[in-house]
Amino acid sequence: MTERRTYDAVVVGGGIVGLCCAWRAAQRSASVVVLEREEPPAGATRVAAGMLAPVGELAFGEPELLKLTLAAAERYPDFVAELEAASGASTGYERHGALHVALDRDEAAELRRVHELQRSLGLGAEWLPPRRCRDLEPGLTPSFNGGVHAPDEAAVDPRALTAALLGALTELGVEVRSGAEATEALIDGERIEGVRTAAGEELRAGAVVLAAGAWSGVAEWLPPDARPPVRPVKGQILELRAPGGEAPCERILASERVYLVPRPDGRLIAGATTEEQGFDATVTAGGVHELLREAYRLLPDVAEMELVEAMAGLRPGTPDNLPLIGPGALEGLVLACGHYRNGILLAPTTGEAVAGMLVGEAVA
Amino acid sequence: MTERRTYDAVVVGGGIVGLCCAWRAAQRSASVVVLEREEPPAGATRVAAGMLAPVGELAFGEPELLKLTLAAAERYPDFVAELEAASGASTGYERHGALHVALDRDEAAELRRVHELQRSLGLGAEWLPPRRCRDLEPGLTPSFNGGVHAPDEAAVDPRALTAALLGALTELGVEVRSGAEATEALIDGERIEGVRTAAGEELRAGAVVLAAGAWSGVAEWLPPDARPPVRPVKGQILELRAPGGEAPCERILASERVYLVPRPDGRLIAGATTEEQGFDATVTAGGVHELLREAYRLLPDVAEMELVEAMAGLRPGTPDNLPLIGPGALEGLVLACGHYRNGILLAPTTGEAVAGMLVGEAVA
Repeated sequence: MTERRTYDAVVVGGGIVGLCCAWRAAQRSASVVVLEREEPPAGATRVAAGMLAPVGELAFGEPELLKLTLAAAERYPDFVAELEAASGASTGYERHGALHVALDRDEAAELRRVHELQRSLGLGAEWLPPRRCRDLEPGLTPSFNGGVHAPDEAAVDPRALTAALLGALTELGVEVRSGAEATEALIDGERIEGVRTAAGEELRAGAVVLAAGAWSGVAEWLPPDARPPVRPVKGQILELRAPGGEAPCERILASERVYLVPRPDGRLIAGATTEEQGFDATVTAGGVHELLREAYRLLPDVAEMELVEAMAGLRPGTPDNLPLIGPGALEGLVLACGHYRNGILLAPTTGEAVAGMLVGEAVA
Repeated sequence: MTERRTYDAVVVGGGIVGLCCAWRAAQRSASVVVLEREEPPAGATRVAAGMLAPVGELAFGEPELLKLTLAAAERYPDFVAELEAASGASTGYERHGALHVALDRDEAAELRRVHELQRSLGLGAEWLPPRRCRDLEPGLTPSFNGGVHAPDEAAVDPRALTAALLGALTELGVEVRSGAEATEALIDGERIEGVRTAAGEELRAGAVVLAAGAWSGVAEWLPPDARPPVRPVKGQILELRAPGGEAPCERILASERVYLVPRPDGRLIAGATTEEQGFDATVTAGGVHELLREAYRLLPDVAEMELVEAMAGLRPGTPDNLPLIGPGALEGLVLACGHYRNGILLAPTTGEAVAGMLVGEAVA
């Protein structure tokens, strides 16, 4: 006997994007179930540093992405406040600012070029000579060529954020199923009407949200032409811990090759490599070596820190680095994937956009 | 009610030295119990690379240590054969030889000096120009200044060896207690007659063997003047794994700053730092960075390997780098500690020496 259930929406993927979509939809009274093959925090969320840094992540030729990330950063404090109130849990959010440092003359030339772009866009970013950088961060390497201070950049702890979202979802009675895999789409003509799970259950729904991160492009339960152009982009990352419980920097520090994100409890996240390796997510000697070397070049005190964990994850990359949010190639299919390096930052606004679509469609 | 039991010997410490002492004593019909605070493989054994390399580890001014290590290496194959037969388990023993490489002119000058000493002592070690080194190990860095090949050097897998010893001990009915701590010596005049455990049990014995590794010098259950001069010397070590299951070198490779020990299953052990840090056994960013950097300098293929684990342990150091094997400061106390960098190599001969003393004393 096949069990059947009916929801307004089935969300496939228990990373932060899927959970935000589910939370926002449930707040609007939609009945939602989240399916996660492993367990939340899943996919790239599990290993993300949690930087909310649209200014520092700015790249040339991506004005549309900048618009999305700036809007998302602006709304993050309200999202965090609402989520922390709903769940009673901390997300580790801190608006401590970021300092991007040029370690040599070439890096300084490039950083000045980026800073010009930042200024031309009216972003909050100031060029500082080395002395003023060191006033902010006395632990910086003795020799470097200046930096850009972006005081509004922030970070969140993605694992804490996930726990808070799970708490808020529980409050609203949303099922988040771990170890639950979609294996087949229930399709009627051009319309997706739900999914069948590996356990043989039929979950019927007004809409199916594809929030499967790097795996969205190989979702075998979808017809091939309904799979979006998402590819995995490997990233390796380190978790360090200060002996005395106090991180050796106050704000996000970055060079061209590494970023360091301090956590309130004295941990420091060092990230991240960017590798096109398919679905391989192995922690490699070379990747860890590069991160340690560059972290040490930037902030020598890192050498004395405990290396707690080295991790690797797969970011969901897209051809134009923009996320895919909106209707998919089947009626009832909603895409919420392809967030590449910006998943933690863009998840709340993605959740709102998707919930709006779901409620519109499901109610109709 | 205090439980009391009586043995010929209580061995304090479940590292490889303690287990070898217990095995050899039990083979001579002594009744033995081993107490280990944590669980075997304990202490430095848990993180040891398992090199059996008296030629490569040779240092100036340590002729007595060389005599011990050469004798131990010569008898290792018989020990392994006997243990594998008794336990039915593999120890991972491989006599694959070692190649010590000089990465620059300074290292070449120093390596030639050591090689002269090796030759003067009649040890099996040949100086090879780079081309011949690369014939042996094609994965070596493209640029170096020659090396010394010591074909008789070997290695064992200390965790596999421990498992085999535990099997052999079980065969002989020896109790190896995990989570069991000695808290007090039972002393009568100048004689130790057993120990009291944290659980309150009294274990009476003809002899007590102190095989507590780096903790031997701070054994609070012994009177202060019965504690031997052993101090902890921290070592950090890495376990790497080849993607295809085949290690990128056939034999032990070493430079002045790192050694690489291949395992039959494609793992590669990279060791080890030597740090005077007291009882701190934290894996640090600086330590791991140094090992990865030096491993990569020696064998570039290391960069593609999986970093499986980084570990730190505490070697039992002594003032003269010689182990402390024999009667302690109390009658009935037998020392089997202070093996510093040579614990895996010297454990079997230590076990034989200690068992001889135990049987002599216990029977008397």
